[in-house]
Amino acid sequence: MSPVHTPHLLPAHACLIVQGKDTPGIVAAVSAMITRIGGNIVAFDQYSDDARGGAYFQRVVFHRPNFAADRPQIEQEVARTLADFELAWELTDQSVPKRMAILASKQDHCLLDLLWRHRRGDLPVTIPMVVSNHTTTAEDVRSFGVPFFHVPSVTGPDKAASEAEILKLLVGNVDFVVLARYMQILSGDFLSQLGVPVINIHHSFLPAFIGAEPYKKAKERGVKLIGATSHYVTDDLDEGPIIEQDTVRVTHAESATELARRGADVERQVLSRAVLWHAQDRVLRDGNHTIVF
Amino acid sequence: MSPVHTPHLLPAHACLIVQGKDTPGIVAAVSAMITRIGGNIVAFDQYSDDARGGAYFQRVVFHRPNFAADRPQIEQEVARTLADFELAWELTDQSVPKRMAILASKQDHCLLDLLWRHRRGDLPVTIPMVVSNHTTTAEDVRSFGVPFFHVPSVTGPDKAASEAEILKLLVGNVDFVVLARYMQILSGDFLSQLGVPVINIHHSFLPAFIGAEPYKKAKERGVKLIGATSHYVTDDLDEGPIIEQDTVRVTHAESATELARRGADVERQVLSRAVLWHAQDRVLRDGNHTIVF
Amino acid sequence: MSPVHTPHLLPAHACLIVQGKDTPGIVAAVSAMITRIGGNIVAFDQYSDDARGGAYFQRVVFHRPNFAADRPQIEQEVARTLADFELAWELTDQSVPKRMAILASKQDHCLLDLLWRHRRGDLPVTIPMVVSNHTTTAEDVRSFGVPFFHVPSVTGPDKAASEAEILKLLVGNVDFVVLARYMQILSGDFLSQLGVPVINIHHSFLPAFIGAEPYKKAKERGVKLIGATSHYVTDDLDEGPIIEQDTVRVTHAESATELARRGADVERQVLSRAVLWHAQDRVLRDGNHTIVF
Amino acid sequence: MSPVHTPHLLPAHACLIVQGKDTPGIVAAVSAMITRIGGNIVAFDQYSDDARGGAYFQRVVFHRPNFAADRPQIEQEVARTLADFELAWELTDQSVPKRMAILASKQDHCLLDLLWRHRRGDLPVTIPMVVSNHTTTAEDVRSFGVPFFHVPSVTGPDKAASEAEILKLLVGNVDFVVLARYMQILSGDFLSQLGVPVINIHHSFLPAFIGAEPYKKAKERGVKLIGATSHYVTDDLDEGPIIEQDTVRVTHAESATELARRGADVERQVLSRAVLWHAQDRVLRDGNHTIVF
Repeated sequence: MSPVHTPHLLPAHACLIVQGKDTPGIVAAVSAMITRIGGNIVAFDQYSDDARGGAYFQRVVFHRPNFAADRPQIEQEVARTLADFELAWELTDQSVPKRMAILASKQDHCLLDLLWRHRRGDLPVTIPMVVSNHTTTAEDVRSFGVPFFHVPSVTGPDKAASEAEILKLLVGNVDFVVLARYMQILSGDFLSQLGVPVINIHHSFLPAFIGAEPYKKAKERGVKLIGATSHYVTDDLDEGPIIEQDTVRVTHAESATELARRGADVERQVLSRAVLWHAQDRVLRDGNHTIVF
Repeated sequence: MSPVHTPHLLPAHACLIVQGKDTPGIVAAVSAMITRIGGNIVAFDQYSDDARGGAYFQRVVFHRPNFAADRPQIEQEVARTLADFELAWELTDQSVPKRMAILASKQDHCLLDLLWRHRRGDLPVTIPMVVSNHTTTAEDVRSFGVPFFHVPSVTGPDKAASEAEILKLLVGNVDFVVLARYMQILSGDFLSQLGVPVINIHHSFLPAFIGAEPYKKAKERGVKLIGATSHYVTDDLDEGPIIEQDTVRVTHAESATELARRGADVERQVLSRAVLWHAQDRVLRDGNHTIVF
Repeated sequence: MSPVHTPHLLPAHACLIVQGKDTPGIVAAVSAMITRIGGNIVAFDQYSDDARGGAYFQRVVFHRPNFAADRPQIEQEVARTLADFELAWELTDQSVPKRMAILASKQDHCLLDLLWRHRRGDLPVTIPMVVSNHTTTAEDVRSFGVPFFHVPSVTGPDKAASEAEILKLLVGNVDFVVLARYMQILSGDFLSQLGVPVINIHHSFLPAFIGAEPYKKAKERGVKLIGATSHYVTDDLDEGPIIEQDTVRVTHAESATELARRGADVERQVLSRAVLWHAQDRVLRDGNHTIVF
Repeated sequence: MSPVHTPHLLPAHACLIVQGKDTPGIVAAVSAMITRIGGNIVAFDQYSDDARGGAYFQRVVFHRPNFAADRPQIEQEVARTLADFELAWELTDQSVPKRMAILASKQDHCLLDLLWRHRRGDLPVTIPMVVSNHTTTAEDVRSFGVPFFHVPSVTGPDKAASEAEILKLLVGNVDFVVLARYMQILSGDFLSQLGVPVINIHHSFLPAFIGAEPYKKAKERGVKLIGATSHYVTDDLDEGPIIEQDTVRVTHAESATELARRGADVERQVLSRAVLWHAQDRVLRDGNHTIVF
């Protein structure tokens, strides 16, 4: 069984993420603990920056009958095992889908691609809602059986009210948020009150063409490849930790509009991979970097 | 430290390859053993086909002071630890380069690429010899400080004598052999007497265009991509376990000669990756498949 | 203006395709003729296999006010101009969309991708109908405003009747047909009565893995890349002229099911490019080859 | 015959580059002229930004017996033909190789790759000299039969003297210059006195990571792809017209040193393509853009 590469939920499987100070013996301690609690490791990934005193990152998926029922005792066992190390850890139930909200604007390519991948069983999430500052995609979204909420975007002093309305919809109801070409900048206040990870798709190969209109800038610079970047959103626009990127070849004969059309295919591919990996607890954050297992 | 991704030799590091019947507890047993012998895991990869009774594959690189000197005791410890499992294992010293022979014919692109990568320190091997059925590359090879031996190819009854001459050069002196566009078919007898792995580069995306003149066949079929495949050599021509493949886009306007020119770049890239991974003990064989960690 | 790279219809533009025996003076004759009739060349592509007596292929897009109204006289002028050459030619109106029917089965990824690209204006075609041997996609298809017809597939003696029913729907109503993972083999009789080009998507990098279950075969062979191929359908299964191909990297850890999931993304990309290029008269057939301008 | 895609010199072939104001009738005028002088078009590419009054670019390769001998009359004919258009033009003899100098520093990967491609007949140029500010590659360069000149780099007031020494070697002897990871910035004075095109390879996907140490910056930003860019050198560092770019996938596990090792392969591929295309007169400059036919 290779749970690592299936997009499906895994009954009676848990994922243990561990990260912190690298110290000899972590693998031995964790794997002995999993054997002790009656678990069987089915996927194991680790990465260390430097063997003596560097940073350590680990993702273990294990099968454990009755994991959900016995979770409290298992968490105690993990805490006990890792008490001697300087490590943060998180234990997730791989049979439980994460709840993903999508924020979108007028463009539908990333939005519909995620909805369609979810429907065919390729994303292990639930989608409790789509929120948009436009109504153009409402009918499409609802045809997938997903609730659609319209929150018009406002600028100036009422922006806070608009963000508050979105927060009211999201907080407590979702585990992460995807900006599927959402053309509004979210305030730092919004992000901190939201309290869950936010994944964005930027329509360029970052750090090239930060900010607005990257395809226009790409045309002006005369690049021979265009790209897309999916990253976690932070206070610094287009500066958050990169999860995934890709590029596609273009020529002098393609206008900025044509670049945007070509780029749309890259954007939806890159975003869908970032979302899948996040949903599977494969993406560990380390400052402004990601470790993708 | 990430020994996994550096092409350099690693002093006081060992690699333990384990493969066989999947059973719960392997990771725990191996990692506890490594801690017990004073080792520290720096890279860990595993793959299992099915959690209950399937096939299991594991590669662990660990740092252990005085590994070379203490190797006999460590091997005993590994044997003891794995006695209860149905697993084959192999322990290699990551500070010792494998000895790689190259067999070549007239074409120089794969041959020179390997020699050049070795010289700049990108391949953790030694190259005790190049053997060729032509003399065209002799001067180039020797300019890299590598011995060149000429063994003319013969067909008919004397082929065995020619192969025997090559065997005399290779056996005992090399740990693996690379066919860098060597245009002779090696007999089953040769392979079994040689007794070390042989890596070939085939100039097509296998299993398309098996056999001779793949670029000509690719042109005739009108494909829009051409490729290259590096694989371990077995008795079945072009049917051995695939290590690495890649493709490149071509158009209707390119002749078979042009495809060969374009393909040469893919061949040397694909072969160099396969050689690097083999030299680092990253490639595990499972029947006609490979697991590449 | 670069009509070559926009997916949109071009008012008052014509495309002249010319192919046949290569003879000096074709470019001069055609371009002089276009100037003579008041046209302006906006895209020009040509390819010749051999300058003296080989095969010649040319695609010219030109702007000509009132092209539609004056088409009869223009066609006479083309015929007169090319009378001295051994060339076949075809003149199309780039302001008129081709009528494309889609045949599908249960799988929806290629089908929905084409419908969605059409809706957002990225395919210069009309879609008068989708015909399927299953009803699973009916509601989705109709939500795009496209008629859906269900013709159950039958084997044995009634297959001809089933094909006749499909022919009745298609003949006279469509300019080309796309098999969007249509899991039935069309008879030679069907193809000849249909009389318009049929484009298929095969879920492998042809000529590797011809026939059924290519992802299963790919897993068994242990390839490191999987691919997809779009080609014109001929009497020989999976042997028709290739229009477009692409590949994507996979690993040992992915099952045949996972390969199919990963391949679905390549299939819809490859098919959409083949359809776009065909719709723009960019694909010239030369026996079992294509010239893609 | 498809001269467009062969790297070889073409006896009795000429290339006519035309660029300027787009006007109806250019194709007709040029192709009629070529027929008139007894030429036969074997490759024809054109691109226009806008059909009415935009910019026009055209590359025509034609076969013409005795081209070299009759060149003066043919040039008069071209001048006469294009007199009525607002176009610049250039006529080159495709049987004459361009003379290419290479400037290099310590790193050998781009330098040796170009020398090796040239030796195997894949670059239609001569290489009259390699100039380096280090002596490390002297022996290798000379083993290819190419003269090597050492001009130490100096900073401060003597930089001009050093540049003057290089100019003395180059001016009049070469048709273009390639900076094969030459780690010195050339002054604007140098460029203007040199008077021939200079092609550079930058070790990043421009405009990302302009300036020094791009791999270090790429590691710090945590990108998932690294790239290389070949461009014409202008007074603005890393801002010249881009000829070719490419990228390759990397992971969190690779250090900046490892990125540099991986990037070296992309650099030599990208640079070799840019050099080939320039040598074949395929690259037209339009301000800070290139048209690559």
